[in-house]
Amino acid sequence: MSDFDQLAGMQPLRIWDGIAARTVHGELVSFAVIELDPGSTVPEHRHENEQLGVLASGTMRFRIGEETRELGPGATWCIPANVPHEVEAGPQGAVAVEVFAPRRDDWGGLERLPASQPQWP
Amino acid sequence: MSDFDQLAGMQPLRIWDGIAARTVHGELVSFAVIELDPGSTVPEHRHENEQLGVLASGTMRFRIGEETRELGPGATWCIPANVPHEVEAGPQGAVAVEVFAPRRDDWGGLERLPASQPQWP
Repeated sequence: MSDFDQLAGMQPLRIWDGIAARTVHGELVSFAVIELDPGSTVPEHRHENEQLGVLASGTMRFRIGEETRELGPGATWCIPANVPHEVEAGPQGAVAVEVFAPRRDDWGGLERLPASQPQWP
Repeated sequence: MSDFDQLAGMQPLRIWDGIAARTVHGELVSFAVIELDPGSTVPEHRHENEQLGVLASGTMRFRIGEETRELGPGATWCIPANVPHEVEAGPQGAVAVEVFAPRRDDWGGLERLPASQPQWP
């Protein structure tokens, strides 16, 4: 199996309603490019995986613990393990590049969405 | 300390000659946006950290183990621990978003470059 791949060749996973991820899994981490439809929401949740990322395009309102920020391209975040967080994508949607550690073995059962052209890059 | 930051506010680290990283460190991973000057090279090296990434802009020739690819935007890679790899940036340079696990505590001694405007996004 190659160590290389292409976002355009990956079948997206449905993470939440209106939110799709193209993922690369290592041994220790899951790396993902996540597309959020305009106005889509990630309800408050928490997980043992720490979650770091950068906003590639669009805007979103992001809450981590007690802190809420309006984010634009170039914003970064670092969510420690088990800290509750929630997101609302802006009116143009958003694309985030994120990593989860340990890797998201719990994503194996997610719905696979039809292949589509990535919105980014 | 906030869980949020901005690429534009980070002082880049000099990873290799002509190659600069703006980084966010978690407990388990280091997340980085890496800018490669046109024609810059990462000499063959290896490390215990697995390394996953996506090419955000530009082009580069990437070798992992015995496999070499010419990459454009949207290409992804997953370098297992301790596998030798090398990179040559294309004539317009490149920007990669990458993660390293375990985190790069060995980067603490790297030279900090002067603050500058990020090339991406």
